[in-house]
Amino acid sequence: MHHLNASRSQRILRLLEELQLPNEIKQYARDPQTRLAPPELKAVHPLGNSPVITDDGKVIAGSGAIIDYVIRRHGEGRLQPDPSSAAFDDYMQWMLYAEGSAMLPLLLKSNVSRRGAAGAPLSPRIESEIDNHLGYINASLEGRDYLLGEALTGADIQLSFMGELAGLRTDRAI
Amino acid sequence: MHHLNASRSQRILRLLEELQLPNEIKQYARDPQTRLAPPELKAVHPLGNSPVITDDGKVIAGSGAIIDYVIRRHGEGRLQPDPSSAAFDDYMQWMLYAEGSAMLPLLLKSNVSRRGAAGAPLSPRIESEIDNHLGYINASLEGRDYLLGEALTGADIQLSFMGELAGLRTDRAI
Repeated sequence: MHHLNASRSQRILRLLEELQLPNEIKQYARDPQTRLAPPELKAVHPLGNSPVITDDGKVIAGSGAIIDYVIRRHGEGRLQPDPSSAAFDDYMQWMLYAEGSAMLPLLLKSNVSRRGAAGAPLSPRIESEIDNHLGYINASLEGRDYLLGEALTGADIQLSFMGELAGLRTDRAI
Repeated sequence: MHHLNASRSQRILRLLEELQLPNEIKQYARDPQTRLAPPELKAVHPLGNSPVITDDGKVIAGSGAIIDYVIRRHGEGRLQPDPSSAAFDDYMQWMLYAEGSAMLPLLLKSNVSRRGAAGAPLSPRIESEIDNHLGYINASLEGRDYLLGEALTGADIQLSFMGELAGLRTDRAI
């Protein structure tokens, strides 16, 4: 597990803990000036993004892809609904939603906020998009503990990023 | 299939054609002023985003989620590798990559370009991110016709958006 500070790696640590999978963590630090990942991380994966895991020689990059991979290959049925069930369709929809739609306005906000006044004109639309997504997630959690109902799944871990970052100013690079 | 102009629906049309699945298309138009989806689309899915499909009463939103759902439930083995194979891990990684990482700088660019001069300070970093992703995709396609090798999969359809939009100014809303 290749861990970069101020990145989406936190979710992967939680996942590995939840499944009690043995792992080894390698730390990387962003360049304090540019906020970019260091070249050593580029050597692990060409995009130089974190999180990245190496499992038995296979490299998987991106938090959603890692959560999906770890649960499919090492979950032994935990943290996801039975693939033949209708709940699995909802699970996959949440997994892809978290990686795409929900993440975008948060990353836009993070990116724009680092530009100070130059980014200010973009803010109202971004804030309204974040409200839209948070409202949708809140409504979906109404009357249940987890997105899929009674049991924690990878979709909750994947979307936890959204809850933690919402409303906070972040210093994560795009 | 609920189709909004200037949106990611094109990929879904291609997917349905590829699998020769019978479907019905319902057209929606963005508000010309705000570029937002009309309220009727909100009635189909609370986020009011396109693309959205309705299949036997089930609503699936988001291009990645739709491609995944249609191929899993109606593909009969077409357009994705065998789920037990190592190629399936790569397939899922591309599916999640396309929805998240690859899309972000394109949507940032689209969003920023609509702000004219106000968005200009953000552009160099966004362009460099787009180059980074295009370089990665190009390198991955080196010596093969499709992302997974010889056969077209949902991952190619999902990422086709990237190829079409790269370098173009778009008017898609976030």
